[in-house]
Amino acid sequence: MFPNLHPFSQLTAAEIKLSSQIIRQLHPANTVIIFKTITLQEPDKEVALEYLQAESEHRPDRPVIDRRSFVAYYRKDHDYLHESVINLATGQVVYNEELDKVFHGPADLDEVGEIEALVHTDLLVLAELQKYNLDKSLLVCEPWVYGSDGINDERRQYQCLLFMRHPDHASDPESNHYALPLPFSPVVDVIHRRVTRIDYLPTGADNMTPDTKGYKVPPPNEYAPKYQNMRTDLKPLNVIQPEGASFTITEDFECSQVVSWQKWRLRLGFNAREGMVLYDVRYDGRPLFYRVSLSDMNIPYADPRHPFHKKAAFDLGDAGAGYTANNLKLGCDCLGSIFYVSSILSSPSGGIVEKPNCVCIHEQDSGIGWKHTNYRTDTAVVTRARELVLQSILTVANYEYILAFIFTQAGDISYEVRATGILSTQPIDKGVDVNWGTIVHPGVLAAQHQHIFSLRLDPMLDGPRNSLTYEEAHAMDPCSPLNPHGTGYYTRETTVQTSGGYDLDEQKNRVFKIKNTSSLNQVNNKAAGYKIMVHDFQKMLASKESYHHRRAEFADHNIYVTKYRPNELYAAGQYTNQSRGGAGVRTWAGRQDAVVDEDIVVWVQFGINHVPRIEDFPVMPVEILKVHLRPVNFFTKNPALDVPPSTQAFNKSCQIRAAATCTNGTAAA
Amino acid sequence: MFPNLHPFSQLTAAEIKLSSQIIRQLHPANTVIIFKTITLQEPDKEVALEYLQAESEHRPDRPVIDRRSFVAYYRKDHDYLHESVINLATGQVVYNEELDKVFHGPADLDEVGEIEALVHTDLLVLAELQKYNLDKSLLVCEPWVYGSDGINDERRQYQCLLFMRHPDHASDPESNHYALPLPFSPVVDVIHRRVTRIDYLPTGADNMTPDTKGYKVPPPNEYAPKYQNMRTDLKPLNVIQPEGASFTITEDFECSQVVSWQKWRLRLGFNAREGMVLYDVRYDGRPLFYRVSLSDMNIPYADPRHPFHKKAAFDLGDAGAGYTANNLKLGCDCLGSIFYVSSILSSPSGGIVEKPNCVCIHEQDSGIGWKHTNYRTDTAVVTRARELVLQSILTVANYEYILAFIFTQAGDISYEVRATGILSTQPIDKGVDVNWGTIVHPGVLAAQHQHIFSLRLDPMLDGPRNSLTYEEAHAMDPCSPLNPHGTGYYTRETTVQTSGGYDLDEQKNRVFKIKNTSSLNQVNNKAAGYKIMVHDFQKMLASKESYHHRRAEFADHNIYVTKYRPNELYAAGQYTNQSRGGAGVRTWAGRQDAVVDEDIVVWVQFGINHVPRIEDFPVMPVEILKVHLRPVNFFTKNPALDVPPSTQAFNKSCQIRAAATCTNGTAAA
Repeated sequence: MFPNLHPFSQLTAAEIKLSSQIIRQLHPANTVIIFKTITLQEPDKEVALEYLQAESEHRPDRPVIDRRSFVAYYRKDHDYLHESVINLATGQVVYNEELDKVFHGPADLDEVGEIEALVHTDLLVLAELQKYNLDKSLLVCEPWVYGSDGINDERRQYQCLLFMRHPDHASDPESNHYALPLPFSPVVDVIHRRVTRIDYLPTGADNMTPDTKGYKVPPPNEYAPKYQNMRTDLKPLNVIQPEGASFTITEDFECSQVVSWQKWRLRLGFNAREGMVLYDVRYDGRPLFYRVSLSDMNIPYADPRHPFHKKAAFDLGDAGAGYTANNLKLGCDCLGSIFYVSSILSSPSGGIVEKPNCVCIHEQDSGIGWKHTNYRTDTAVVTRARELVLQSILTVANYEYILAFIFTQAGDISYEVRATGILSTQPIDKGVDVNWGTIVHPGVLAAQHQHIFSLRLDPMLDGPRNSLTYEEAHAMDPCSPLNPHGTGYYTRETTVQTSGGYDLDEQKNRVFKIKNTSSLNQVNNKAAGYKIMVHDFQKMLASKESYHHRRAEFADHNIYVTKYRPNELYAAGQYTNQSRGGAGVRTWAGRQDAVVDEDIVVWVQFGINHVPRIEDFPVMPVEILKVHLRPVNFFTKNPALDVPPSTQAFNKSCQIRAAATCTNGTAAA
Repeated sequence: MFPNLHPFSQLTAAEIKLSSQIIRQLHPANTVIIFKTITLQEPDKEVALEYLQAESEHRPDRPVIDRRSFVAYYRKDHDYLHESVINLATGQVVYNEELDKVFHGPADLDEVGEIEALVHTDLLVLAELQKYNLDKSLLVCEPWVYGSDGINDERRQYQCLLFMRHPDHASDPESNHYALPLPFSPVVDVIHRRVTRIDYLPTGADNMTPDTKGYKVPPPNEYAPKYQNMRTDLKPLNVIQPEGASFTITEDFECSQVVSWQKWRLRLGFNAREGMVLYDVRYDGRPLFYRVSLSDMNIPYADPRHPFHKKAAFDLGDAGAGYTANNLKLGCDCLGSIFYVSSILSSPSGGIVEKPNCVCIHEQDSGIGWKHTNYRTDTAVVTRARELVLQSILTVANYEYILAFIFTQAGDISYEVRATGILSTQPIDKGVDVNWGTIVHPGVLAAQHQHIFSLRLDPMLDGPRNSLTYEEAHAMDPCSPLNPHGTGYYTRETTVQTSGGYDLDEQKNRVFKIKNTSSLNQVNNKAAGYKIMVHDFQKMLASKESYHHRRAEFADHNIYVTKYRPNELYAAGQYTNQSRGGAGVRTWAGRQDAVVDEDIVVWVQFGINHVPRIEDFPVMPVEILKVHLRPVNFFTKNPALDVPPSTQAFNKSCQIRAAATCTNGTAAA
């Protein structure tokens, strides 16, 4: 039915609509269906690998792979989530199940909008506003995923954080309401669409909630440019690519792009949950990764008091990196020559949501790539490091995440997260200080929180069977005959035998590597590998018995390795909203599968413990995290050796003399 | 005599020459003096602070500070190093001492050249070449600082590593001799200028040295562009600053530059040992740092066998970041509008060495600075992060270090090291593998080594009296009434009471901060501070009893704090060449001075354990290390809030449509 689609093409508009139509036919005609997810059910790996191999060899004899969709949905006014897989080629429903009441679908923007509207007119809420003597027209409601604490988790709920616009900026929708958090929070039952209770927020140093007298409206604290006295001494810096960009984008199938750049080739996907997905990543024709994506993230907060104890968002599982992706704008987000990728996602009604410009692709200069000066002749050879960036930016209510895959000319793939946006705030009484947050504005507390990310790598280094190893450096025995001066040290490498969670150890210089033991380096006979360069981070602080810990199944180890199984894509399981643990990478790794020379999946965790600074308010300068995947004995020499040296003729840089300035193209040395 | 010089102006040519002339007059007329160091003896801090305060307030009543020089020198053919301080205003020799025989001055390029020439004609060396049947015209000699092992350390020596150009590239001085290391190494006595012995290098897996039959000339492995088959698909990327750069450089005194950019102001120095030094760093008029510089680095190697057990270079102390600084070239090293700073250093004969273009100053775009999208109105505010870079590049024989201070619009100062260049190599027999190095070319081993850097911060955050603290995050007691769900965590801050060495602890999220406890944030009452963001690294692996460990007095802790004392500038002491420990930050910190609200100095260590990849040869892609100094409750809000938002009109970025390309200025959305 859809023969002209690549197995990794994302669902087309027609496929999304067909999927929702087939689901509707399973139910009585007047049933209103709320579609939480309609997305590509990826092909079986074995046949997909066969297809990719034929594709890479330009062979036409590729296996025919039926297109399938995965659907999760509710019947309106019913509690139970359903999931289904549909064969789109045959129209057949592969399966369709009503799930247990503990499983909840993610939030969606329609739903969030309805909850907001409901709160704005709720009589309980209006009565509270009146108690505080606050103008209801200034109210801003932000429904948060409810979280889990073991109490009524089967009930699908929202915890609504309330704010207000400052009275002086009453009519300005860009006024920063996060500077004016209110001290009460309605809870909404989603299925029955009603406020079930008002939570009063503790605003002191203990878990007591205050009386209404205590609340004082803070002054404004705006981030919008019109409120600033702008600095005027910043001169333009333009990135000009007179011959265009060095990459090519081939849209060879509907909803599918092949990105080619500097010996790299990959297929880009974009889905509702993970946003960008890389498929079939190759360098110079050699296979590296079958699939790479950010698998999930979790942001547990430090404030132990009700209802803050439930704050622990899974921004991918609960909201979706695809749905929350920004429409990127020329000139605002990137410099240089930029290609934008647009995408189509499913809507709650079973139609489509257009996601224009949700990924941008551009090159950047990353400083010197390598340099050497022959000190005898004073001859220098220097290259600039050009990089290819695939970027997507999420807005999850107050916060933003700038997510990027970065490819280098030296064979590296990096994943970069820039955390920015606005801190999640709550009111705090004057004169009170607590050790789980920072006062960022008079009467406003920003609680500490951890950002813990899980990057999922499905490798195929020179083939689908790979191993995970870790290398350590140790001092040699200072009493041994080989090491009489006590200066020697050695490395040893250990192959991980079974699936599980593993940790870094900086004082052993422990480095994890993905290797293909059957692909040996021609010069030094070492197995071809890629090392995972990632910094250690403080693991989740919530106790092992807490719901935070149980739910975030990836948050306790730097590295997890599992043996590949279909449908194990998300580190905290398929359904994270109000989840209770028991699904995710910790559970899967617990199978203790053999993982030597197997089809393995490697989950790389990284993160920060964000103790807010007052400088992070009212909008926070980017906090940058990076993971690098770097070849180790994969090539036989520096793969960037053939990058042309940097020259002024090529770069058009210009010299500023004395106190004067220069403009490029006019002055030169 | 030199009234028109700022107290932090580096020595002028006249001052250098006057210094050497005064020293010569202390000795009999026919004495040949070899000057190792003639550099600014910095003023007493108390009077310098008084001067800087008056300067910052534009007051003319600044104290008169006599110019002084520090001189270290040898009398030719004599073993003993001398040091001297001269008052240049009065011509008076403040002191002049002959030091103990254990102290050695650094290498210098004249000396290295003479040693090379000596080895090339040495009969012992020529006899060895003949034994191996090697053409002496292909020989390349690289004198290394000798190192220490407790044996004859009083004798000043060089260990000469030998290489050859490949016979096929015999006449090409750019041929990469590091691909052809020879298996013997002459040792040279510097004072008496003669080869004292030939060391035979172990080329197997043990410490036996081979017979001459074993050596096989490796194939060539060139990095020079003419030998490469260049990639041809990289299109130009130009950074154009049509209105010039946003910084200003004021050369207000001879040998002194004031750099002003985006509320930052600092005075730049450049000396023989440290290269770049930042003085009197201020943001928006508020004092931050009295002095910042890279203090030293140490590179101990893993191979335990003689003579490799002595390889542990202090590239600043033994050679000098100033002397080894590259002459930077337009277009080759940086993009955009670049200002070059040149400097003058002293020569071994007491004259001057010109260091043209030894520092480059330019701006760079560093991606998104902050962003927030109001999801209700879809209004995005986004800024680009502009940075100011002060860069200097060292070539220390085979290796290069690209060193940069980077200033941001959000109040950060970063220090970046990019390690590149060529691995130090040694021969290895065919079929042999060892666990202390990587075979990077047939018959060529690159031994593992650590790079350990020490960044010296002399802070004056809102005044000269500061404290060092560390913050940690800990789980709350899961049984406490405040934390019934086990999700809470808190931070606690500890003030370091006495000078000493302190370590990071990632699982406690331990972060060190410099604070001024008498400068409180107006909003949240916290002490104004800067945090030190640096990743942990594996401390020196050599045993505590080894000379490596004794000498590198900074290599065992992430952070050292000392109470300021004059002349304590270098983390491994004044004289590192063949040193034996006993001077440096470990010793100074051992005084256990009180460091609360005192004039403190903070030493930040960082580094990598470089286990070579074959991809690091024949020239290594940059390995990047960073330290960030970031304000914490120093300002009352994001200091980059007043950066104008990014727009296409300002940035001139351009959109690539479909498969076609764009050139900026023509296409736009």
